[in-house]
Amino acid sequence: MSQTFATPQQAEDAFYDALEERNDALMMCVWDDSPDIALLLPLQPFFHGGQVRNAIRELLRSDVPLNIQVRHLHWVEIGDLAIHYVEELTHASGPSADVPPLFATNIFRRRGNGWVMILHQNAPPSPPAGMSPH
Amino acid sequence: MSQTFATPQQAEDAFYDALEERNDALMMCVWDDSPDIALLLPLQPFFHGGQVRNAIRELLRSDVPLNIQVRHLHWVEIGDLAIHYVEELTHASGPSADVPPLFATNIFRRRGNGWVMILHQNAPPSPPAGMSPH
Repeated sequence: MSQTFATPQQAEDAFYDALEERNDALMMCVWDDSPDIALLLPLQPFFHGGQVRNAIRELLRSDVPLNIQVRHLHWVEIGDLAIHYVEELTHASGPSADVPPLFATNIFRRRGNGWVMILHQNAPPSPPAGMSPH
Repeated sequence: MSQTFATPQQAEDAFYDALEERNDALMMCVWDDSPDIALLLPLQPFFHGGQVRNAIRELLRSDVPLNIQVRHLHWVEIGDLAIHYVEELTHASGPSADVPPLFATNIFRRRGNGWVMILHQNAPPSPPAGMSPH
């Protein structure tokens, strides 16, 4: 399977679709084939390059709820890069249903006539006790 | 006061110096003069454009410890943009001395012959209870 995304938005939609469908093949098409890609998730080490694909494959195989509603906050396009700031709302059922939204940054770059993801990072809205919000 | 930074690294150093010295004037030189700048901090709303300067001024005036040791994890330069992934270690004294490092993303863009910051985001290594590390 190989798929190209004509706009950063199409690549971003595919990213969240791949999460929701736990679609490994689609997810692999979303990311740039480069040592420069990076994934920064709470509770996880810094992943970059090939580690990103392994980490995200593990996430897709996990039982973490990946049904995420996305609200766009702000978009920036600078040359061949696009930065999307989004709010992510998970639909975790049960006691965690009131989990507040996460803020995430998704960065895409143009490769030929397609766009690929180079960074996904999210920042939970509230830190563990004793952690400075600097 | 006006200052330009010849490299993304100089702009980043100035950012952390400005935090440590609580140097408002230096901090204002670090950021791009654009509605596209953004600041994503735990426990805080999404700030962009002029809100960033207000939020960071408030941070400099606060009693949050801003003595941060930085370790570079990975650098990416794409055209006129530079993305720095760093680990931030705070030297909070007392019971929070063992606070684990935060992962942060700093993004800079070239403006004429200088570099300015357009994004600072950090992701704490561990999420509040009930929050999914997706």
